[in-house]
Amino acid sequence: MEKTNLEILVKKALDYAKSFENTGKVASYIPELFKADRDALGVCIVANNKKIYKAGDCETLFTMQSISKVVALILALQTVGRDRVFDKVWVEPTGDAFNSIVRLETHNHIPLNPMINAGAIAVAGVIDSEFPFSDFLALMRKLCGREDIYLNEKVYLSEKASGMKNRAIAYMLANEGVLEKDVEQTLDFYFKMCSVNVNAEDLARIGSILANDGVNIFTGERLVESEYALIAKTLMVTCGMYDGSGEFAIKVGIPAKSGVGGGIMCCVEDNFGIAVYGPSLDEKGNSVWGLKILEYLSKELNLHYFSGAKVKEYI
Amino acid sequence: MEKTNLEILVKKALDYAKSFENTGKVASYIPELFKADRDALGVCIVANNKKIYKAGDCETLFTMQSISKVVALILALQTVGRDRVFDKVWVEPTGDAFNSIVRLETHNHIPLNPMINAGAIAVAGVIDSEFPFSDFLALMRKLCGREDIYLNEKVYLSEKASGMKNRAIAYMLANEGVLEKDVEQTLDFYFKMCSVNVNAEDLARIGSILANDGVNIFTGERLVESEYALIAKTLMVTCGMYDGSGEFAIKVGIPAKSGVGGGIMCCVEDNFGIAVYGPSLDEKGNSVWGLKILEYLSKELNLHYFSGAKVKEYI
Amino acid sequence: MEKTNLEILVKKALDYAKSFENTGKVASYIPELFKADRDALGVCIVANNKKIYKAGDCETLFTMQSISKVVALILALQTVGRDRVFDKVWVEPTGDAFNSIVRLETHNHIPLNPMINAGAIAVAGVIDSEFPFSDFLALMRKLCGREDIYLNEKVYLSEKASGMKNRAIAYMLANEGVLEKDVEQTLDFYFKMCSVNVNAEDLARIGSILANDGVNIFTGERLVESEYALIAKTLMVTCGMYDGSGEFAIKVGIPAKSGVGGGIMCCVEDNFGIAVYGPSLDEKGNSVWGLKILEYLSKELNLHYFSGAKVKEYI
Amino acid sequence: MEKTNLEILVKKALDYAKSFENTGKVASYIPELFKADRDALGVCIVANNKKIYKAGDCETLFTMQSISKVVALILALQTVGRDRVFDKVWVEPTGDAFNSIVRLETHNHIPLNPMINAGAIAVAGVIDSEFPFSDFLALMRKLCGREDIYLNEKVYLSEKASGMKNRAIAYMLANEGVLEKDVEQTLDFYFKMCSVNVNAEDLARIGSILANDGVNIFTGERLVESEYALIAKTLMVTCGMYDGSGEFAIKVGIPAKSGVGGGIMCCVEDNFGIAVYGPSLDEKGNSVWGLKILEYLSKELNLHYFSGAKVKEYI
Repeated sequence: MEKTNLEILVKKALDYAKSFENTGKVASYIPELFKADRDALGVCIVANNKKIYKAGDCETLFTMQSISKVVALILALQTVGRDRVFDKVWVEPTGDAFNSIVRLETHNHIPLNPMINAGAIAVAGVIDSEFPFSDFLALMRKLCGREDIYLNEKVYLSEKASGMKNRAIAYMLANEGVLEKDVEQTLDFYFKMCSVNVNAEDLARIGSILANDGVNIFTGERLVESEYALIAKTLMVTCGMYDGSGEFAIKVGIPAKSGVGGGIMCCVEDNFGIAVYGPSLDEKGNSVWGLKILEYLSKELNLHYFSGAKVKEYI
Repeated sequence: MEKTNLEILVKKALDYAKSFENTGKVASYIPELFKADRDALGVCIVANNKKIYKAGDCETLFTMQSISKVVALILALQTVGRDRVFDKVWVEPTGDAFNSIVRLETHNHIPLNPMINAGAIAVAGVIDSEFPFSDFLALMRKLCGREDIYLNEKVYLSEKASGMKNRAIAYMLANEGVLEKDVEQTLDFYFKMCSVNVNAEDLARIGSILANDGVNIFTGERLVESEYALIAKTLMVTCGMYDGSGEFAIKVGIPAKSGVGGGIMCCVEDNFGIAVYGPSLDEKGNSVWGLKILEYLSKELNLHYFSGAKVKEYI
Repeated sequence: MEKTNLEILVKKALDYAKSFENTGKVASYIPELFKADRDALGVCIVANNKKIYKAGDCETLFTMQSISKVVALILALQTVGRDRVFDKVWVEPTGDAFNSIVRLETHNHIPLNPMINAGAIAVAGVIDSEFPFSDFLALMRKLCGREDIYLNEKVYLSEKASGMKNRAIAYMLANEGVLEKDVEQTLDFYFKMCSVNVNAEDLARIGSILANDGVNIFTGERLVESEYALIAKTLMVTCGMYDGSGEFAIKVGIPAKSGVGGGIMCCVEDNFGIAVYGPSLDEKGNSVWGLKILEYLSKELNLHYFSGAKVKEYI
Repeated sequence: MEKTNLEILVKKALDYAKSFENTGKVASYIPELFKADRDALGVCIVANNKKIYKAGDCETLFTMQSISKVVALILALQTVGRDRVFDKVWVEPTGDAFNSIVRLETHNHIPLNPMINAGAIAVAGVIDSEFPFSDFLALMRKLCGREDIYLNEKVYLSEKASGMKNRAIAYMLANEGVLEKDVEQTLDFYFKMCSVNVNAEDLARIGSILANDGVNIFTGERLVESEYALIAKTLMVTCGMYDGSGEFAIKVGIPAKSGVGGGIMCCVEDNFGIAVYGPSLDEKGNSVWGLKILEYLSKELNLHYFSGAKVKEYI
């Protein structure tokens, strides 16, 4: 069987996505995000043959937004341990929107999972009570393999100034005893982690580490404990794509986490880290064209975990 | 590396589970179910080496209950097609209990997924408007590879007499236009499919077919279309274990569907169909000891889809 | 001080209401209701001087719909007693729509009050388990002072055929043990009581009885126990106008109960029974022009219970 | 008919209440409140004969808590006008607890009424954006007819330090645009108004002013516009006693507002201001013994607005 040429495939995937009308909207709740080019689109694959395949806008910086929830979870697990983390947040999927506050009052006293805002704020709470935000940046730099990962100050200040719903969620968590320290400090950590600038390659590199059980394929270094990589990937499957997670699991079928900055970070077990960047979002907050790219790649390479066939060989 | 002896392993798994106190309760909402032996326990593996490994109570008959939702979904997909099914039910996980009615009023007009009662009743609705219940039994017989699969009349009549919450859900669905035909007839289909008697081996055989992309490994016959097996398995991952699906996905990490009759049906891609039977349930409706068996097997055989290691070789 | 001429006032009130654009919609969930003339409007006052003042369409028959909830509550109190009624339904107002099912699952196991559908079905349940529907008709005939009060068969059959949401509510109540007998029989009672034909004068006569502590001013006969008249009026204040009850209490300030047939039945303590008929409804289910008439009368006659002035004298 | 001696009646009412076991609990969410004497009990009537009748603990100071919501509403109406107030809060009763946040997300974007926390914070928001808290104290002093009404600093600081749920509500309101200014400043106003110290006579005096259409019976001075007194009393009827308002409306039937400090402020149209103080609360937050006193007085004096009889004459 002929091997698939990924160099060509990423370009085709980009063209395929762009053949669809751009029906989405750039996030506009803060002005900084709305400055993004709504027709920007990029895809990057970090493959286990140690090659990196890119097409489109892969150098553009954008803020991680909800994708930071995966890294924050890993940091929390590494710093305070599994028990203390899951004392503050469950691991169950939810059919609610990412920023829902309702269940905190009606059903549960701790958030349903770390991929929704309430859960990620709870995770930020267990980290920031002992560790400074620089630890988050340090982990990001190790995972991305480059030192110049920085906070986007404008986005951070804008999030901080306008994040009233997240403040409401945080004070509910304080009321329930989930947040035990200073609420504004925890929110500060949360707003900062959402505002870290990355590009598509950065996210594909993190995806590759998760795809390889926590190990950097270029250096052989273990950056994430196997157990924590497993937890992160499992939560990405059940809760990674907001309230579109179930449909994504059927259509694409790989662990993925999206952010309203336009990024989606994915991993294909033992094979690929994949990331897309496309700031035009559907009503659930997922990149419209980014989803098309991932559907295309999943189909062409047999990436779905239950596709019934092996991942195709590639060069 | 030494191969694992499954003959021995299933016995060990049984012993491991029984070493825990039986803290659960047998379902009691209808008297027939409550007659089950709360200390019964069985496990069966149908492996791709065409051998069947069993330990404990694998001949005991019990009703499928919610496990029938997987088979009903497959039947619906096969008979009326993907579009008509997903016109009536979504595929998103939910943090609510299996029998919740709230979201039908507050959030959605169609049920969130086919693994909760509302969704399965919607699925029953698309089937029974054109096909008799005998088609469900016929599919069950093909999947289990034996002709003497029957309805448990006592359980069925008891479900039918007492299923007030399910009736409420069904009339809500009729109100929303999800059920278009006779509501009581659809409920009849639903109560019947929940009341089909099986044993652990039957469920392991169905699991094996799903694990093999829809193909019966003994006969080579394709019984479920690849696309539908993928959908079933994906929904088992995100929604198969009631509101304990997220925790199960982390701890065990294989597609699974449980029923309050005490059964859990699982599949391990390209390797195993697995079923457990243990009627003592936790507060979410999952077999207490059954979960222990599956945790044990997952760990011993590297079954988690993101375990970072291949499934162990076995004899 | 000059006395107000009610003969003239009711005509003025009618003109005042008709000076507003008819922005409402006739109820259309069953075809029979939708046949009503959307520009029909009538007002009737039964005053304690034993005169009856009318303007507009006061002979037109329409179905009581939710106004029957007041009479059903009185019948239930009279037949099974206060304790057995309030064992099945609370007396608290709710901000939800009249046909909401959510709270039955999330908050309470018995309905919040007898003026919402769930509560009225619970009331129907305590009556119909011992008394035939003819008892309801008999009470209506006594209250209205005429024998030819009948069921509108077409509306009744139409309600019965289409009332899926009410069925869902009833089965939820059965599930919670609030309905103890045959659910369909209780629903039959409920659909029938909603479908009794009345005209505006009938309702004003019932209002007059409530305004006079349960006594018919024309005959001096006590038809409703003082205690039960008090309960009915209090619930009309807090819950009588659907989720517009609070605004009505401020703007008009008299006990009132509306129905989607277009009627509103009111009572002014020691003074008047008032009814309006206008089938064009606002989005909450209250007669658009009927509300205008009541606002006008309340202002002109000082009817608000907290107006700070006595009801004006009249002839 | 013999006139009732109120001097004797208030003593009897006190004895009647104390004949019941004290089954309630003193509010304990902040330490200051929990210091109250759980067996304290007082009742004060300010009658239209310009006499004041007292029994029990009528000099004890306690914080207004939710009773301040009535005064804040009046202040808001007086300072910014009816339109600007009801642009930010509705007037519909709710079956939810006083501190519920759910509806802000699921149903409405503005709070349901000014007697629940969300609504009172919205009211505080429209006031404090233009007027200092000293205006609230000034209004209180005029209404109570004494200058030495002060903030309880300890309670205020304690509320401010622990009010996480109220902060969550306030940030939700800011998110919905209901609060337009500084959230912490609005909360400060809210915590302060809840922490004003009063005694039972103070509250009875305010009740008397409302009972007399806004006029101080001792001085003849109008302190509250008639229209605003009407609004306040109507909301006290439908929403004044937390989620026990419906039951209170049936059992007692007078406008009333309770607070977790143990006070209940009531008014009987054209007759009385009544207040009770008893810090032992039922699970809804209303004074257990206070309710008994009010039930007794209502029955003995025919106070229910729909009692079917005139208020008894008294000396």
